Amino acid sequence: MYYGEKKIEKPIRWAMVGGGKGSQIGYIHRSAAMRDFNFDLVAGAFDIDPERGREFGKQLHVDEDRCYPDYKTMFAKEAKRQDGIQAVSIATPNGTHFEITKAALLAGLHVVCEKPLCFTTEEAEELEALAAKQNKIVGVTYGYAGHQVIEEARQLIAEGKLGKIRIVNMQFSHGFHNVAVEKNTASTKWRVDPKVAGPSYVLGDVGTHPLYLSEVMLPDMKIKRLMCSRQSFVESRKPLEDNAMTIMEYDNGAVGYVWSCCVNCGSMHGQKIRVIGEKASIEWWDEHPNQLTYEVQNEPVRVLERGMGYLAPSALEEDRIGAGHPEGLFEAWSNLYSRFAQAMDACDRGEHVEFWYPNVHAGAEGVRWVENCVQSADQGAQWVDYK
Amino acid sequence: MYYGEKKIEKPIRWAMVGGGKGSQIGYIHRSAAMRDFNFDLVAGAFDIDPERGREFGKQLHVDEDRCYPDYKTMFAKEAKRQDGIQAVSIATPNGTHFEITKAALLAGLHVVCEKPLCFTTEEAEELEALAAKQNKIVGVTYGYAGHQVIEEARQLIAEGKLGKIRIVNMQFSHGFHNVAVEKNTASTKWRVDPKVAGPSYVLGDVGTHPLYLSEVMLPDMKIKRLMCSRQSFVESRKPLEDNAMTIMEYDNGAVGYVWSCCVNCGSMHGQKIRVIGEKASIEWWDEHPNQLTYEVQNEPVRVLERGMGYLAPSALEEDRIGAGHPEGLFEAWSNLYSRFAQAMDACDRGEHVEFWYPNVHAGAEGVRWVENCVQSADQGAQWVDYK
Amino acid sequence: MYYGEKKIEKPIRWAMVGGGKGSQIGYIHRSAAMRDFNFDLVAGAFDIDPERGREFGKQLHVDEDRCYPDYKTMFAKEAKRQDGIQAVSIATPNGTHFEITKAALLAGLHVVCEKPLCFTTEEAEELEALAAKQNKIVGVTYGYAGHQVIEEARQLIAEGKLGKIRIVNMQFSHGFHNVAVEKNTASTKWRVDPKVAGPSYVLGDVGTHPLYLSEVMLPDMKIKRLMCSRQSFVESRKPLEDNAMTIMEYDNGAVGYVWSCCVNCGSMHGQKIRVIGEKASIEWWDEHPNQLTYEVQNEPVRVLERGMGYLAPSALEEDRIGAGHPEGLFEAWSNLYSRFAQAMDACDRGEHVEFWYPNVHAGAEGVRWVENCVQSADQGAQWVDYK
Amino acid sequence: MYYGEKKIEKPIRWAMVGGGKGSQIGYIHRSAAMRDFNFDLVAGAFDIDPERGREFGKQLHVDEDRCYPDYKTMFAKEAKRQDGIQAVSIATPNGTHFEITKAALLAGLHVVCEKPLCFTTEEAEELEALAAKQNKIVGVTYGYAGHQVIEEARQLIAEGKLGKIRIVNMQFSHGFHNVAVEKNTASTKWRVDPKVAGPSYVLGDVGTHPLYLSEVMLPDMKIKRLMCSRQSFVESRKPLEDNAMTIMEYDNGAVGYVWSCCVNCGSMHGQKIRVIGEKASIEWWDEHPNQLTYEVQNEPVRVLERGMGYLAPSALEEDRIGAGHPEGLFEAWSNLYSRFAQAMDACDRGEHVEFWYPNVHAGAEGVRWVENCVQSADQGAQWVDYK
Ligand SMILES: NC(=O)c1ccc[n+]([C@@H]2O[C@H](COP(=O)([O-])OP(=O)(O)OC[C@H]3O[C@@H](n4cnc5c(N)ncnc54)[C@H](O)[C@@H]3O)[C@@H](O)[C@H]2O)c1
Ligand SMILES: NC(=O)c1ccc[n+]([C@@H]2O[C@H](COP(=O)([O-])OP(=O)(O)OC[C@H]3O[C@@H](n4cnc5c(N)ncnc54)[C@H](O)[C@@H]3O)[C@@H](O)[C@H]2O)c1
Ligand SMILES: NC(=O)c1ccc[n+]([C@@H]2O[C@H](COP(=O)([O-])OP(=O)(O)OC[C@H]3O[C@@H](n4cnc5c(N)ncnc54)[C@H](O)[C@@H]3O)[C@@H](O)[C@H]2O)c1
Ligand SMILES: NC(=O)c1ccc[n+]([C@@H]2O[C@H](COP(=O)([O-])OP(=O)(O)OC[C@H]3O[C@@H](n4cnc5c(N)ncnc54)[C@H](O)[C@@H]3O)[C@@H](O)[C@H]2O)c1
Repeated sequence: MYYGEKKIEKPIRWAMVGGGKGSQIGYIHRSAAMRDFNFDLVAGAFDIDPERGREFGKQLHVDEDRCYPDYKTMFAKEAKRQDGIQAVSIATPNGTHFEITKAALLAGLHVVCEKPLCFTTEEAEELEALAAKQNKIVGVTYGYAGHQVIEEARQLIAEGKLGKIRIVNMQFSHGFHNVAVEKNTASTKWRVDPKVAGPSYVLGDVGTHPLYLSEVMLPDMKIKRLMCSRQSFVESRKPLEDNAMTIMEYDNGAVGYVWSCCVNCGSMHGQKIRVIGEKASIEWWDEHPNQLTYEVQNEPVRVLERGMGYLAPSALEEDRIGAGHPEGLFEAWSNLYSRFAQAMDACDRGEHVEFWYPNVHAGAEGVRWVENCVQSADQGAQWVDYK
Repeated sequence: MYYGEKKIEKPIRWAMVGGGKGSQIGYIHRSAAMRDFNFDLVAGAFDIDPERGREFGKQLHVDEDRCYPDYKTMFAKEAKRQDGIQAVSIATPNGTHFEITKAALLAGLHVVCEKPLCFTTEEAEELEALAAKQNKIVGVTYGYAGHQVIEEARQLIAEGKLGKIRIVNMQFSHGFHNVAVEKNTASTKWRVDPKVAGPSYVLGDVGTHPLYLSEVMLPDMKIKRLMCSRQSFVESRKPLEDNAMTIMEYDNGAVGYVWSCCVNCGSMHGQKIRVIGEKASIEWWDEHPNQLTYEVQNEPVRVLERGMGYLAPSALEEDRIGAGHPEGLFEAWSNLYSRFAQAMDACDRGEHVEFWYPNVHAGAEGVRWVENCVQSADQGAQWVDYK
Repeated sequence: MYYGEKKIEKPIRWAMVGGGKGSQIGYIHRSAAMRDFNFDLVAGAFDIDPERGREFGKQLHVDEDRCYPDYKTMFAKEAKRQDGIQAVSIATPNGTHFEITKAALLAGLHVVCEKPLCFTTEEAEELEALAAKQNKIVGVTYGYAGHQVIEEARQLIAEGKLGKIRIVNMQFSHGFHNVAVEKNTASTKWRVDPKVAGPSYVLGDVGTHPLYLSEVMLPDMKIKRLMCSRQSFVESRKPLEDNAMTIMEYDNGAVGYVWSCCVNCGSMHGQKIRVIGEKASIEWWDEHPNQLTYEVQNEPVRVLERGMGYLAPSALEEDRIGAGHPEGLFEAWSNLYSRFAQAMDACDRGEHVEFWYPNVHAGAEGVRWVENCVQSADQGAQWVDYK
Repeated sequence: MYYGEKKIEKPIRWAMVGGGKGSQIGYIHRSAAMRDFNFDLVAGAFDIDPERGREFGKQLHVDEDRCYPDYKTMFAKEAKRQDGIQAVSIATPNGTHFEITKAALLAGLHVVCEKPLCFTTEEAEELEALAAKQNKIVGVTYGYAGHQVIEEARQLIAEGKLGKIRIVNMQFSHGFHNVAVEKNTASTKWRVDPKVAGPSYVLGDVGTHPLYLSEVMLPDMKIKRLMCSRQSFVESRKPLEDNAMTIMEYDNGAVGYVWSCCVNCGSMHGQKIRVIGEKASIEWWDEHPNQLTYEVQNEPVRVLERGMGYLAPSALEEDRIGAGHPEGLFEAWSNLYSRFAQAMDACDRGEHVEFWYPNVHAGAEGVRWVENCVQSADQGAQWVDYK
């Protein structure tokens, strides 16, 4: 149980690039970061429109002169301050992540970057190397991974409760883009423009989320080969897909499926992961983020609930309100941001943290997976060896 | 609303081959057929073991001398009686379906055959031709199709409520065979023996069920090509699979997925179909066979319920107890058997019925699909043109 | 597992009073009774309108001359036949149950009577005595009690899995009569006419169903006192209620609640029972009749499923299709009718059956409960000692 | 949609009494208050144990010299500071609420008080008067009311979508105290001690929550009389109840039920409210706090979802992450605290806010309801006129 005490001695001085007024994801970054004394928002280049960004920054109690017109100015100016920022979160459209992350690392900052980290494995490897060289943390916001029962799933699997893993069935499939909403919505427009969005739409935008959940739950499984079939049901989205099915073969003989979709009309809660072993399965669904079903064949299905004493200690640490009360996505993100803060703080003290969090390698893995999927899809949905 | 009145003038004199004591599926055939004055059970070759078969037949009030040791004897002897059987249901292991159906047609009988109708499209075409020549009905027991809301789904789609269809997501995925239960259970043993089961296990055993639901809902969509990835997680089942994922491309640009599985630990109600159009989706799940969700994008999800006045008239005809009360699988089968009886009766009178039912072509289509899936899988999960 | 074999040597010759064309409940009686060789429908006085009744009987393959204009004629004429009826089911409006049951017993018939058995405990006691004197079975169709997991609940409680029972929370609350549908529907009209319906509407019509479930699950608990608050939200229904809440105190210190309602707009599946003990609870809901939740405090909620090997043997006996497949209300009724048949058959042979079924005392108890509720309600919802 | 901008010019200087390390409810107060620049935590008397309280305060970044040993000292010392606190939240055991709230108002502070506001209506009226006299805000943390779909329910009802209201069915029923956990848990111990807890346990502790939801949804309905039956299943809790059923009659002819319980074994999400009108019902359940079912009789049940464009504008204002993503209890509380802040800020500027929030009268109403329930229960569960 967590009562809100500080986890690091002093809040980290923190800025955002992007995440401005009207952006989809900016608020949850701030809400998660600023909770529980982990980060202080002291600067920002919140918007592609500098004026709007400054106005917004002021609404967030950021000093006017630390509301910057762009990230370059911010990194340069902040570097000169005694009390300059120590970390930055990047919540801009995909096409800018690589260059901003790189610039931030070069500016000596810790980074929290939105997914996708970048567009190519080449870029990803460059960032992995740079983070290592600069000795800085790069966190990636696979936010759902912060739900506490995801950790319980990881523990159950580690303890062998499921037996040998056979099938991992994943999906993130919503319906909000069933028609060309991008015609009228700025924040969807860039998503279907390859220059800004990268080589894929739904594979990267949604598919990588349950994929990362599988990586948390199954840290030892490696993809051997995969095939991906993708479509653009809204024609104008071509070459970017709005629907895709990926089949993966893992090195241990297991198979995985990922259904990524944004034209699944009516679907409100489209993210699920089911891990099937030879003895039992576990399933998590984002409509019930506080629950995990644990299904041993020939026994009654069990519904595990966040916060209950029968969970693994590590799945209980981040309980904030007790069992039976619904925590939501904000707590999941808060849990991640708390780990980012602790990792940054430890890093600054020359130490390491023990717990997992979506780091630069997780970010790189997402990029790699999309790249492989796209390669397969573009070859007519043929199998490709995973590399 | 249906009150139990006869739908045909006189019950059809009927026999069973297989479906004996201890068999999985025999009882539901009898229960569905004998309901509502459609069929009278007057003879049978219920068991591979003649003695056990006779004993069982007597328990079913079948005259001892019409409890036959095998189907050949039965067809021959019954043909000589004035009051001989008019129709036969075949509920034996897969490997016998072709020869028994053929023999029954040649003996001038109407047939209800378990799925799969046979093993190859060649055989299927032979049966299609023979049924036409003999002018006899062949029904195939894709029993779930008899649930009333399946008809509602068909109507909603026909009326264009979903718009152009884009994705059909299907699964039949249970966990009862997560280990080699066939070592100890006769009724599972034959299922993994290619000689008796045919060229596939779960594709045919479970996958063809939601596939047929999709055919009912989407009568005009044709598969263009498919690929299938299959595994035998219980090694001794090789070459037969206990898990498979099939991806299909339809001629209208839609895609379909079928997950067929019997090692999905803990899954109790594994059959689902979701049809996604450009405007709305519908979803049916066998855990709630009386409900259908109808999900128009940007409107609240609606839960349609069996028996309610807002349904299509054709979806209400077979209501037997009123809305709000759970009908189950037995009613679904009864609905099919009632259609079989009416089709047989009409056929005998030189007429045709207007309504759909799983007929010999539906049976043939299931066989064709499995054949294509197996071909793809055996080529390393490559795409094959559907033929 | 049950495969459909006969449970009694010869089907019982059986007739119906009421349950005619268009009646709500007639079909399920026939479907349940005639299943599995338990009863043969050989006669009937199906309708208040003799002509319509005869027409309907013919549709049910009943000989025209055994389609009687009224029950008196039927009992008289059948008594004179060698092959006359042995049992009768009564599915007429409430006001006739007492006299028809009495007449049937006097005519030497076994009876299956719809609830309520009669209107007053005085009448009920008369029927109890008469049934004993005539040595005949009177079954009452509390049909939901036939769901197999109800037996599982009974066993779990008997084994002490819940500990001392504290609270029994029941409801049967639907919305189909939210407005005065009786203005246009014959089968609702009589329900709100005290002369035909008796002293209550929803208490008797729906409330007694979960009450009987509680009697099956908790055979030893006795009501000590109760209070009932009832309303007629559709004014024209006065003095009969369309909503009621009953609070009961049991002799062992437990309390019970029954919410009876027919104006609960939109509620499709309104029957639930939750039994709460000091260690655990069980809950059954008619929307999921094949499931029972078993909830031990501080353990994950378990979902028990019909047909699974972990259930009590007595809860598995009536499985007809295996776990994971939805059985419905028809199977529940079939299970009861099968017990009625076996009880009648044993009775005729001078024996007794071991298993429970809703017998004449269960019918009497429902009448008593309604009487007490009405008495309380009519005194301004004051407590009354249960008698 | 809310992006986190400040709603008031400057955060309110804020302190807590109680809510210390290990307390159940302290963290959610802080998390909700400190979110979005509404309140700055600058002082506290967090714990009955001053030393532990000071240690904890330091963990919350409160200056050591503003971590006070008790609330009296705090109010006195803070009053002398230029930058002294402007508001205080009280999260101590029930028995102290009255005196601390009174002291806070007298010290010129705005107050957020935990429920129950006090023990008697006499006290409640004193606080109502004092708040008016001091012209200060008293907010009461009926936290669930902050869920956005509660506002949607209020709007649907106000628009007449349900028609005349007939039945309000409420429950808050959990199982965490099925045995005498208070023997070992400090935070449960006081709850069953009348001196500290007040005249009731579950009625006040949980029952008042859905009651307040009903007040939000149905602002015009007044209770006319009620009866309450309560029990102490864990004997040592006497005279305080661990289970209670309350039946209410409203002045417009509607009835209400509240089931309050803490011995409902296994129940994880026990809070529900269902409002039934003559045309439709709405239902909210805390297991799905982002959903509201809207059930028009004879139409398919509709599931309304937080964040969707079809909701009332006022139900969308506090959306923080978009539809389809689970917000939880923390957002509900944040919404309330945001309204408290705005109300305090407006009050200081001599203005009023337009929106509803649980104010001192809501607090008083809860106290009144418990008082009436207890009076009824203590008279043997007799009806009492509501006063
Ligand atoms: N982790 C998740 O669950 C999740 C969810 C949604 C979005 N995202 C990711 O977050 C990122 C942002 O997505 P969004 O939906 O919030 O986009 P959006 O279009 O809604 O908002 C983008 C914001 O970035 C600002 N911006 C754009 N270019 C900028 C620049 N060069 N410098 C500074 N600000 C700039 C815009 O003004 C806007 O405020 C994307 O990479 C997306 O993939 C992640
Ligand atoms: N439609 C469905 O939903 C469904 C469900 C289950 C099974 N099935 C199909 O039904 C068929 C039977 O399956 P099952 O699970 O009941 O098998 P089972 O092994 O449980 O029973 C087979 C029965 O057939 C008898 N039999 C075997 N060979 C025979 C022969 N030559 N002549 C007469 N009787 C013979 C056996 O004695 C036994 O009684 C299979 O084709 C299977 O695919 C369909
Ligand atoms: N057990 C249950 O779950 C359940 C459910 C519904 C109804 N019921 C009970 O079943 C009984 C019938 O209800 P229903 O809803 O089917 O009623 P209904 O009005 O739909 O049908 C009544 C039938 O009885 C016939 N009838 C009336 N008077 C008769 C008479 N004197 N002789 C012969 N036939 C006569 C009518 O013609 C009609 O066919 C009632 O007592 C009701 O309480 C029980
Ligand atoms: N609104 C809700 O949903 C909700 C939920 C839980 C509790 N509550 C209410 O919150 C209040 C606190 O409940 P809890 O469960 O957190 O209790 P708790 O026993 O867990 O914690 C009480 C806290 O108050 C401190 N405290 C006690 N007396 C004090 C005093 N005189 N001065 C300063 N600190 C003192 C204790 O040290 C402890 O930190 C109760 O009134 C309870 O009814 C409300």
